Amino acid sequence: MLLKIPQNSYLLFTPGPLTTTPTVRSAMLRDWCTWDDDYNSLVRQMRLALARLGTSRPEDFACVPMQGSGTFAVESVIGSVIPRANAKLLVLSNGAYGERIAQIADILGISFVKESCEETRPCDAARLDEILAADEEVTHVAVVHCETTTGILNDVKGIGAVVKKHKKIYIVDAMSSFGGIPMDMEELGIDFLVSSANKCIQGVPGFGFVLARRSELELCRWHSRSLSLDLYDQWVEMEKNGKWRFTSPTHVVRAFIQALRELDEEGGVEARNRRYRDNQQTLSAGMRELGFEPLLDASVQSPIITSFLYPKGRDFSFAEFYEAMKADGYVLYPGKTSKADTFRIGSIGDVHRKDIEGLLLAVKRFAER
Amino acid sequence: MLLKIPQNSYLLFTPGPLTTTPTVRSAMLRDWCTWDDDYNSLVRQMRLALARLGTSRPEDFACVPMQGSGTFAVESVIGSVIPRANAKLLVLSNGAYGERIAQIADILGISFVKESCEETRPCDAARLDEILAADEEVTHVAVVHCETTTGILNDVKGIGAVVKKHKKIYIVDAMSSFGGIPMDMEELGIDFLVSSANKCIQGVPGFGFVLARRSELELCRWHSRSLSLDLYDQWVEMEKNGKWRFTSPTHVVRAFIQALRELDEEGGVEARNRRYRDNQQTLSAGMRELGFEPLLDASVQSPIITSFLYPKGRDFSFAEFYEAMKADGYVLYPGKTSKADTFRIGSIGDVHRKDIEGLLLAVKRFAER
Repeated sequence: MLLKIPQNSYLLFTPGPLTTTPTVRSAMLRDWCTWDDDYNSLVRQMRLALARLGTSRPEDFACVPMQGSGTFAVESVIGSVIPRANAKLLVLSNGAYGERIAQIADILGISFVKESCEETRPCDAARLDEILAADEEVTHVAVVHCETTTGILNDVKGIGAVVKKHKKIYIVDAMSSFGGIPMDMEELGIDFLVSSANKCIQGVPGFGFVLARRSELELCRWHSRSLSLDLYDQWVEMEKNGKWRFTSPTHVVRAFIQALRELDEEGGVEARNRRYRDNQQTLSAGMRELGFEPLLDASVQSPIITSFLYPKGRDFSFAEFYEAMKADGYVLYPGKTSKADTFRIGSIGDVHRKDIEGLLLAVKRFAER
Repeated sequence: MLLKIPQNSYLLFTPGPLTTTPTVRSAMLRDWCTWDDDYNSLVRQMRLALARLGTSRPEDFACVPMQGSGTFAVESVIGSVIPRANAKLLVLSNGAYGERIAQIADILGISFVKESCEETRPCDAARLDEILAADEEVTHVAVVHCETTTGILNDVKGIGAVVKKHKKIYIVDAMSSFGGIPMDMEELGIDFLVSSANKCIQGVPGFGFVLARRSELELCRWHSRSLSLDLYDQWVEMEKNGKWRFTSPTHVVRAFIQALRELDEEGGVEARNRRYRDNQQTLSAGMRELGFEPLLDASVQSPIITSFLYPKGRDFSFAEFYEAMKADGYVLYPGKTSKADTFRIGSIGDVHRKDIEGLLLAVKRFAER
C-alpha cells in the first residue's frame, strides 16, 4: 500500500508538542508487541541513551520512563521521592510550572514551602542559601530549569551548588530544556531530573521520563502515594525484566526512539542547542524590528521559547493575530504571564532558520495589513 | 513524499495493544496543535461519541479521557470518586485486575474490603447481596467486566441490580470489553465505567477514558488524591473550554478518532461484537481440535480473550511455541492464572476469521513438528 505522507498543515512554534520530522511520525505506522524481548530491549537502549544524554556518569543514573504527560512524571518524582515523614520540600518558583510543583506537594499532603520571585527574574541562589541556613527541616529542593511561562532560564548550576552545600536532594524540572541545552547532572548536582517525549528530543507526546541518581532512587521504596505513578516500582520492574509495569504507548515510544537517532545524527545536544539558539536569536531580532519587544532581558532568555509583549500604541488582538498566522502555516502560543500581556513563540522542534524567516515574513504581512 | 506503508510484521492476538488498521495508524502522520479550537472541538465530539456508545441516555453521562495507561484511568476513578471520609470500597475480584483495584485503594489509604472468588468462576451476585446486607459501611462496589487474567465475563447486570438495590455507587472496569460488547450503563446501573484507547475501539495506546454519571461526578470535587489523576478537575476543565488540563497524546487521540469512525463503519458495537464472537468461537473450536482445551466453561467465556491449558501428556514449552508462532506472524500472550499453566489468545482488534484460520494452521504446523 502506497501512501502519500500528508504534509503538516502548519509548523508548530510552541514549547511542545512541537513539529516533528516525517520520519519520526512514520515510526508509528506499525503495531508492535508491547511486552516481549524485542520491545524490552529497545526500551532498555532508549533508557541508556537518555542517561548518556543527561550525565557524564551514566552508570550512576537510571532512566525511568513514565506514562502520561510531563506533569505525570513530575508528580511521580514528588510523590515517590519525598519520604512520608521527616521531609520538607522547598520549591523555587518563578512561573506556572514552579507553582504546579507546589500544587502537587499540596495535594499529596507533603510538607513544603514555596519561595516565589518575579516571573521575569531567575530564582536567586543567594536567597536559597539564606532559606536553607534558616530552615533545617528542608530536605528537598525543586526548581524548573526553563520556565516556559516566560521562557526564562533558571541558573540550575548556581542553585545546585547551594543545594549541595546544604546536602539536600536536588530535583530539576527540565521538561522543556532537556536535549536542547547541554547539561551534566553529575556536574550540576542534580539528583532527579524530569522531561518528556515531546520536547527537545522531538518525539510525539505520550510519556515523560525521569533521570535519577541510583543511590537516591534506591531509598524511595514505599514512598509512593500512587500505584500508577510509583517511580521506584516502575524502575525496579524495568531493571528486572525491561517491562513497563502497565501498558506503554508503544507507537509513541517507537517514534521517540527514532527521534533519539535523529538527535544523534544532528550532532547531539550541542548541535541542537546551536540550532535552537540560532532560531531564537533570528526570531528575537526579527520580531524586535517589527515592533514586538521580548519580555525578558536577553541575558536570562532561553533558546526554547520567547515571550513577546503586545505592541504598544497599536490595536492588537492576539486571537486575530493567531488566526492569521495559523492560516499562513504558523501556529503560535498564547501568553501565560500574570502581569504583562504577552504571547509566546517557541523555537524548538523540527524548525530551522528558513522557517523562522518565513514566520517573520508572515508577521510582517500581518503588521502591515 | 510517497511512502510505502510498512506491513505489520505480525498480527497481535493479545488483549490490547492490539492490531489496528493502517488507516488508524496513518492518522498519526501529522503534527497538530494541542490546544486550539480545532482540536478541542474534535475532543468534544470524541467524548460525545463515547458517551453514546456507553449508554442510551448520553445526556446523563460525561466522558472524561485521562492520559496514561488504563490503570491510570482506573486509579483516577478510585482516587477521585471515593470520598476521603465515611466511605468504603468493596472490590469483587476473580483475577489480577480485580486485585489491582484493591491494590490502588490500599496505596491511596482508602478503606476497602475485597471479596475474592475462584478465577474460573464469575463473581457471585448473591454473595454480594449478603455482604452488602451485613456491612453497612460499604458505599462503593467495583468489579471488572471482562477479567483478562482468564478471559472470564462477569455478570455486570446481576451485580448491578444488587448494587442498586442497596443504593451503592457502582464502578465497572470495562477496560477490555467496552466497544466490543454492547452495554448500556443506564440499564446496568453503572455509575463509573473505565476503558482505554487500545482495546475494542481499536486505537493505539496512550490514554484511557471514564464514562461517569454526571450527578455522581458532580459530587467528587476535592476528593482526588492526585493532581494528574484528578478526574473531577479534568472533567470541569474539559466542560469549560474543551481542554485537557495537561498535554494530551495528540497523535494517539487522532488515531482514536479515526478508530471511532471505523467502528461506526463496521456497524457499531453490535457488529463488532459479532465479529469478535465469531473469532473466539472459530479459535476455540479449532484449538480444541488441535488438543488445546480452553480453561473456562463456554458459558462464562468472553469473546475478548481465551485462556488455553498447556496440552496434557506432551512436552510443551510456551517460550518455544511463542517464538514459532511469532516467526509465522502471530503474536500470542502468556498466561496469568495462578493455579493452572495457561497461555492466552486474544480475539479482538483488526483480526478476522481468515486470520484466526491462519493462526490455527500455524498452531497445527507447530503441533505436528
